[in-house]
Amino acid sequence: MDEQSLLTLLRAVRAGGLTETEALERLRTMPFEDVGFARIDHHRALRQGFPEVIFCPGKTPGQIEEIARRLAGGGATALLASRADRDAAAAVARALPGALYHETARLVSWGGLRQERPGLAAVVSAGTADLPVAEEAALTLEAVGHKADRVYDVGVAGLHRLLAVMGRINAAGVVVVVAGMEGALASVVGGLVSAPVVAVPTSVGYGASFGGLAALLSMLNACAAGVGVVNIDNGFGAAMLAAKILSAAPPTPANA
Amino acid sequence: MDEQSLLTLLRAVRAGGLTETEALERLRTMPFEDVGFARIDHHRALRQGFPEVIFCPGKTPGQIEEIARRLAGGGATALLASRADRDAAAAVARALPGALYHETARLVSWGGLRQERPGLAAVVSAGTADLPVAEEAALTLEAVGHKADRVYDVGVAGLHRLLAVMGRINAAGVVVVVAGMEGALASVVGGLVSAPVVAVPTSVGYGASFGGLAALLSMLNACAAGVGVVNIDNGFGAAMLAAKILSAAPPTPANA
Amino acid sequence: MDEQSLLTLLRAVRAGGLTETEALERLRTMPFEDVGFARIDHHRALRQGFPEVIFCPGKTPGQIEEIARRLAGGGATALLASRADRDAAAAVARALPGALYHETARLVSWGGLRQERPGLAAVVSAGTADLPVAEEAALTLEAVGHKADRVYDVGVAGLHRLLAVMGRINAAGVVVVVAGMEGALASVVGGLVSAPVVAVPTSVGYGASFGGLAALLSMLNACAAGVGVVNIDNGFGAAMLAAKILSAAPPTPANA
Amino acid sequence: MDEQSLLTLLRAVRAGGLTETEALERLRTMPFEDVGFARIDHHRALRQGFPEVIFCPGKTPGQIEEIARRLAGGGATALLASRADRDAAAAVARALPGALYHETARLVSWGGLRQERPGLAAVVSAGTADLPVAEEAALTLEAVGHKADRVYDVGVAGLHRLLAVMGRINAAGVVVVVAGMEGALASVVGGLVSAPVVAVPTSVGYGASFGGLAALLSMLNACAAGVGVVNIDNGFGAAMLAAKILSAAPPTPANA
Amino acid sequence: MDEQSLLTLLRAVRAGGLTETEALERLRTMPFEDVGFARIDHHRALRQGFPEVIFCPGKTPGQIEEIARRLAGGGATALLASRADRDAAAAVARALPGALYHETARLVSWGGLRQERPGLAAVVSAGTADLPVAEEAALTLEAVGHKADRVYDVGVAGLHRLLAVMGRINAAGVVVVVAGMEGALASVVGGLVSAPVVAVPTSVGYGASFGGLAALLSMLNACAAGVGVVNIDNGFGAAMLAAKILSAAPPTPANA
Amino acid sequence: MDEQSLLTLLRAVRAGGLTETEALERLRTMPFEDVGFARIDHHRALRQGFPEVIFCPGKTPGQIEEIARRLAGGGATALLASRADRDAAAAVARALPGALYHETARLVSWGGLRQERPGLAAVVSAGTADLPVAEEAALTLEAVGHKADRVYDVGVAGLHRLLAVMGRINAAGVVVVVAGMEGALASVVGGLVSAPVVAVPTSVGYGASFGGLAALLSMLNACAAGVGVVNIDNGFGAAMLAAKILSAAPPTPANA
Amino acid sequence: MDEQSLLTLLRAVRAGGLTETEALERLRTMPFEDVGFARIDHHRALRQGFPEVIFCPGKTPGQIEEIARRLAGGGATALLASRADRDAAAAVARALPGALYHETARLVSWGGLRQERPGLAAVVSAGTADLPVAEEAALTLEAVGHKADRVYDVGVAGLHRLLAVMGRINAAGVVVVVAGMEGALASVVGGLVSAPVVAVPTSVGYGASFGGLAALLSMLNACAAGVGVVNIDNGFGAAMLAAKILSAAPPTPANA
Amino acid sequence: MDEQSLLTLLRAVRAGGLTETEALERLRTMPFEDVGFARIDHHRALRQGFPEVIFCPGKTPGQIEEIARRLAGGGATALLASRADRDAAAAVARALPGALYHETARLVSWGGLRQERPGLAAVVSAGTADLPVAEEAALTLEAVGHKADRVYDVGVAGLHRLLAVMGRINAAGVVVVVAGMEGALASVVGGLVSAPVVAVPTSVGYGASFGGLAALLSMLNACAAGVGVVNIDNGFGAAMLAAKILSAAPPTPANA
Repeated sequence: MDEQSLLTLLRAVRAGGLTETEALERLRTMPFEDVGFARIDHHRALRQGFPEVIFCPGKTPGQIEEIARRLAGGGATALLASRADRDAAAAVARALPGALYHETARLVSWGGLRQERPGLAAVVSAGTADLPVAEEAALTLEAVGHKADRVYDVGVAGLHRLLAVMGRINAAGVVVVVAGMEGALASVVGGLVSAPVVAVPTSVGYGASFGGLAALLSMLNACAAGVGVVNIDNGFGAAMLAAKILSAAPPTPANA
Repeated sequence: MDEQSLLTLLRAVRAGGLTETEALERLRTMPFEDVGFARIDHHRALRQGFPEVIFCPGKTPGQIEEIARRLAGGGATALLASRADRDAAAAVARALPGALYHETARLVSWGGLRQERPGLAAVVSAGTADLPVAEEAALTLEAVGHKADRVYDVGVAGLHRLLAVMGRINAAGVVVVVAGMEGALASVVGGLVSAPVVAVPTSVGYGASFGGLAALLSMLNACAAGVGVVNIDNGFGAAMLAAKILSAAPPTPANA
Repeated sequence: MDEQSLLTLLRAVRAGGLTETEALERLRTMPFEDVGFARIDHHRALRQGFPEVIFCPGKTPGQIEEIARRLAGGGATALLASRADRDAAAAVARALPGALYHETARLVSWGGLRQERPGLAAVVSAGTADLPVAEEAALTLEAVGHKADRVYDVGVAGLHRLLAVMGRINAAGVVVVVAGMEGALASVVGGLVSAPVVAVPTSVGYGASFGGLAALLSMLNACAAGVGVVNIDNGFGAAMLAAKILSAAPPTPANA
Repeated sequence: MDEQSLLTLLRAVRAGGLTETEALERLRTMPFEDVGFARIDHHRALRQGFPEVIFCPGKTPGQIEEIARRLAGGGATALLASRADRDAAAAVARALPGALYHETARLVSWGGLRQERPGLAAVVSAGTADLPVAEEAALTLEAVGHKADRVYDVGVAGLHRLLAVMGRINAAGVVVVVAGMEGALASVVGGLVSAPVVAVPTSVGYGASFGGLAALLSMLNACAAGVGVVNIDNGFGAAMLAAKILSAAPPTPANA
Repeated sequence: MDEQSLLTLLRAVRAGGLTETEALERLRTMPFEDVGFARIDHHRALRQGFPEVIFCPGKTPGQIEEIARRLAGGGATALLASRADRDAAAAVARALPGALYHETARLVSWGGLRQERPGLAAVVSAGTADLPVAEEAALTLEAVGHKADRVYDVGVAGLHRLLAVMGRINAAGVVVVVAGMEGALASVVGGLVSAPVVAVPTSVGYGASFGGLAALLSMLNACAAGVGVVNIDNGFGAAMLAAKILSAAPPTPANA
Repeated sequence: MDEQSLLTLLRAVRAGGLTETEALERLRTMPFEDVGFARIDHHRALRQGFPEVIFCPGKTPGQIEEIARRLAGGGATALLASRADRDAAAAVARALPGALYHETARLVSWGGLRQERPGLAAVVSAGTADLPVAEEAALTLEAVGHKADRVYDVGVAGLHRLLAVMGRINAAGVVVVVAGMEGALASVVGGLVSAPVVAVPTSVGYGASFGGLAALLSMLNACAAGVGVVNIDNGFGAAMLAAKILSAAPPTPANA
Repeated sequence: MDEQSLLTLLRAVRAGGLTETEALERLRTMPFEDVGFARIDHHRALRQGFPEVIFCPGKTPGQIEEIARRLAGGGATALLASRADRDAAAAVARALPGALYHETARLVSWGGLRQERPGLAAVVSAGTADLPVAEEAALTLEAVGHKADRVYDVGVAGLHRLLAVMGRINAAGVVVVVAGMEGALASVVGGLVSAPVVAVPTSVGYGASFGGLAALLSMLNACAAGVGVVNIDNGFGAAMLAAKILSAAPPTPANA
Repeated sequence: MDEQSLLTLLRAVRAGGLTETEALERLRTMPFEDVGFARIDHHRALRQGFPEVIFCPGKTPGQIEEIARRLAGGGATALLASRADRDAAAAVARALPGALYHETARLVSWGGLRQERPGLAAVVSAGTADLPVAEEAALTLEAVGHKADRVYDVGVAGLHRLLAVMGRINAAGVVVVVAGMEGALASVVGGLVSAPVVAVPTSVGYGASFGGLAALLSMLNACAAGVGVVNIDNGFGAAMLAAKILSAAPPTPANA
């Protein structure tokens, strides 16, 4: 509740159009709905301008279906369900016919774009095994209205493959780098672009990768400036951060 | 070296204005200078539009002085030296008279701004002990031309203090959150703003903070979307990422 | 065995009502029963005033059934079996008809309350996925006679949802906070209430949550005073601590 | 700001005794004072009924002196400064003549008790090297008005020493257990008392104690119920939790 | 090969009863047999006086059967197979009819005792879930000829249960303590007995037990003297160490 | 692209045999092929002289089949697929009839050797459970043309078994040591040979081996000089390093 | 207090030679003395047959002097002070003239041996830097009456040095192995001796030795049977365990 | 002792030129010398063809001086002392006049090269702060007779600097890569060269570099094949491994 609306409310009290008890009630009535196991926040999407999101792990299919139904009933016109297995996807589809399941990305999307947004994000990944996380990022970016250029399988072990696509990467206003194992791609890309880089370590690897820890630490210590890191395998979070960065304003290849 | 300049060079070869050997030499002559212990990259600043930066730890005062001298000789008009102790600061000052030492932030700045840049960053910190890192971020933002609004000592243990300044924080195009101990400030601020958040865990704390690990993990697991994390105590890196985000375009309170 | 009963015993020896060998025997005969794989402690409940508890993991259904049967045979009138899967629950039910299985909380309860106890505990949880741990805490509190007010899905990413229920939370004499991911809820609630807070990190999360480690470290470093932490996912232990706190009253040596 | 005072303010607006702009201003003017590097919260002590506290590490003596002066100027009548070295203690003393420095506990106390509080806390420690943490806890408990019974050097390697003092420990309404190395004292005491136990792991030890990690993990896994853990070496935090527990009485919505 | 047999061999060379090439061959012919995937060491048992042992994990049933067959063919009269699942146990039984499978302890034993050995070991465990590890220790001790007194379910949370059996524990020449969770039992027993203690941390627990790490660190930091620690869940190793301790007698160079 | 070919290209431009645009195009056309989810690098094998390799984890059978088909289509005459389960092996076989599946080593090999290479590698392993990793190393060495001498089951607990085969090990130009548990074999072998040692920690073990961490740290701290360590269970990587070492000969700028 | 003395006391009560209050008092009067910061246990040495021990870290010189004085006053005839720096050593010497300071081992010894004990311990160390820990072990063994054979600088990188002294090591009834870095010496020695091995990891090393963690994990995973591990750098604890092992003889209930 | 010399010895026994006792004595008399705190191995250098090495940490100056004196007395003609501070360097110089102290590399060298060895090693480092480790590697390589090409300050954040020197790096027979922070240089170089790579993580960095752990894990997970890793900051060990690789040539049983 910002100051402007607070002032409006206070003016209504002063003008007598609202009793002080009514004003208190309004101040207390927050725009969410309680369904017992989850509080549905109908205004979060409005506030942030993005689709509603359900993070599926730890929720039963019944809970997911109920939340999806309520969000739609509350006026949501677009929804994402992340980390959705087949059962979770089916639950969303029961509530919201027409929902699409992107199996590689474990993502369910429903509803239309609120708006086309300007700005291009490059989603750059190191290896084929990083695909699920990269796709989660790319699809989420598209679901919120941005264009995503997928630049996959350009790990640093074959540097010429990366250098060959730097033109495409440099055309983007923000770069999402997805890499497991030693995660060196974030440092290398970070040193070659002027746009901000969102780095996503993945759990791809074995042994001393310790479930993504190696890539995570590597990215946090990236010697290139301008790199922000999100949680291991968090393609969705990376996309949301990238979208917020792009919403600052639309870059074009001309000014990139 | 972009395609355009490569094409120009090739045209010169074709036109005979350049022998193939001269062309090869030019392709090889990268714009850096070798001083033995360090390669001075005269064009990095031009390329990225920022001042030159010397990261001081592990360098002797003599090396710092030499690097500073060479950078200035190479045409740099602005320079930052980060993590500088008094000896390092004196070394820069010997090379670059007029350099300023910001002791709390352990930062040396020299030279004029290349340009005023649009966009406002809020630097939000949890406690007084986080000041050195927060100041490093704020001064770096100012050194690259942005405005920084310092919002200090608003940790979540006294939530009303934070809520009282949310107006100022929401006016910024990017928010740098600096917090040690449990680092919860990043999650809370991330849930209250629509701008991207750059989270800096600090090593403030003791015992099970394990040198900033607790805050780092906390920030990486932030339940709010739109949070990118940098290394522990890395105020400089946070500022560089924030500056790159702001350079996308200038937000104003009106469109924030 | 307190000093008073020891004195009584010694007096009986002195008075000749008890031979020294009989006295020795009594001193040695502790109130537990040996069933081979487990020593059943019939007096623990009496001593502490709580139901008997069986921690199920690592015990076979046969062992669980036998322990339940012996506890009831030893005079127990109420019993909880925690971390019970369906097989464990069935084992308890075979021994104690009428036992109830709370599947979400993985808890079996049997028998009547020894007493209604005064005091209200608020059980506050961050997300829907924290429900099993929160329910384990709430049901355990109810099983020992306290009232539990369930305040669920109020994570800090939507702070207004939490602020809207602070009235209910502040009405409690002790607050159990259940949160995974970054666990920031403990710090925020700890700063808003004057009652003691029992913080339960959960293993909800992925990647750098490292099975609950992020939330655990976060809660241990909570900047708010008055927060005590229990093991990851330990809803039962949190409830027992909360119950002891609610039962606490300024004691004096006389009534200790 | 509770509902009652909000209602009063709204009534004043309605009655015309306050313009809406004035009301807005009051809503915004929170009871804290900004001194640049720190926000002084004059009402926290009132709100929680405890002395003001300054956590000294990371603050310069000048900052500590300034904060102490402001807190006293804001009406504080009692103050603690924790983790204070000699310089910090001198800084407090400059601001608040009469402040006492407890060197072992690294604690500065100033001012009179707001009130004698009922309830006795036992502070139990394992070894002589745990003294600084135990004393920090005991002195803090006394500074907030409780009685603290110091039961020191009763580690489990000499179990008879512990058993000999169980009478004193059982007389307390809350037990603070301070132990380093393997931290087994918390489990053993937890199994012998019915009062809640606040466990403080200390960094006492070497090698595989890893700075207190061994004791911390041990206490978090305590097999006895009713144990809440605070951060390593956090004697102050343990005391604050213990004080809140002693102050706890079955609350009702009416007196909450 | 000790000096005596070397001298004998050299004498035979000198006396001409052995060519130097034959002597070399003997020196090289070590008493093991190569079966491709495993070198069977027929003399290890003789050297150490214990049954042969097969550690099953990572070996196929076929490999286990083959090794068992070879060991028996090489003259072994007793054999243990540790960490054996049902398939491994069946493989041993195919090679060595009469082999017994102890399912709780995951141990297969075959053959007769080489000798009754003097000395009694107490195997003390904290909880019912520690039974598999404790039984592995007890059965192994018995397989090598020692008596093992099983003292189970005497965790420190119910200290009176432990104190009641100290007489039995003190009768042993070596005490094996098996405990998970916080592993405090090792410290407490270590302080109450004069015999050496072999501590076995178990992976029993959850959350911050981190697969037995908490108990392991706790036991390594045991404040009682005379405690040696083996790997997590290593009941077999603990028994072997205990057996060596029981076999130890003040040796002299003469009988070494 | 080396200087020589660049010079040739520039000469062609100068001579008019190539337009500048054609030259630019050639510079940009790197020798790899984009199949969407993976960039097939047809020249890597040529560049390094080894077979093509597919690392299977995280790739679907369909992806593996497609990559194998493309590599063969691109001219590859030999291929390895590592960490291949049965499905992955079948996928390779569909693309490349005649491919062999080595189940223990989880390796698929196809095609003929490019060349017999000189040099012998010893692959030394500690126990039978290390076989899969050791075989992966040995088969990979053979696939690239070297001879591999398998010296298995010579762990340090039976030192005479190791000493008996030192002759064979010392005959090798490089020694690959494969060991889990405490990984001491690397130190011991490293002290006995003059050839370089490639150490492979394996995840064989339990409890405090922490998935191979114990062996990894042990090998990194090997007191013997001349030991290089690869990732846990990385038999393939060890073989590739060993092959490069065997191929190494004192180079000169001329033949570099 | 054993059963026999309890029976005696009860008989005295019955016979009237002791009132029940006197008996209670005796039961409560444990044989230790409270000096405020430390409980002096005068009977521990008697109970265990060893000298008194003061662990110095975390104790002030004044506290050390006072404890030493009290122990001597309580009848102690021999004392060790471990981890003693020069100040601590001087404090002991003030209390107990004639105390000897062994600087390398950081150990102070005072008083005569209670008895010559049979049995020989070998103290085997890997490198010169392990000397302080090895000497702490050897001197402690001698202080409690055993013979210690020092076998130093026989790390596994030069295996022939170790093999050359195996005769001496095999003559011992217990072997203490002291090693840092990768700690492989424990495995190798453990495979060559039939006596029990007490392994002491040291913090000697750097980088990935992580303060002794590498050696600790290595020793816990030792593939040889019969190895018990103590804390990092804990030469004193190793000696106490070794002494208990040497003192061990097949006990019977009669002499327990 | 190889088979040939053993055969010779046995022949001498058979021929009567050596009594069996003399033979035994010779077998036992290993070529090292015992100076109490250290066993000087006079033949190690001969065996491996390298200078003698003293690792200084944990040794007193007196011990270092003594060891140096003995090594020279034993015939050593070249010696390195690594990790030497000024005191250690002075100690070596007292024993061996003419010893040189390389302060940056903390290395002392003495004596002449045994031989010029063929082969060139490139020592590649990421930043100026990595200099001490890189110099330790380069100087050690030179001390054993190889040429070292120092290629410093070519971290991946400025990729063009690295690419500009790839010609020099590719001219080497082995490449030592020295990098801290995220250690990405090893992966990038590993993908660009065909020679084996020895990767040295350094402790350069802060925060989440955790003393070099980030670089270590990164290098162990390097996606490029042919990379072997040594301990953090271990420039000496890297050089020794590189030297062994350069000395490697396809061996045959004949010349092994």
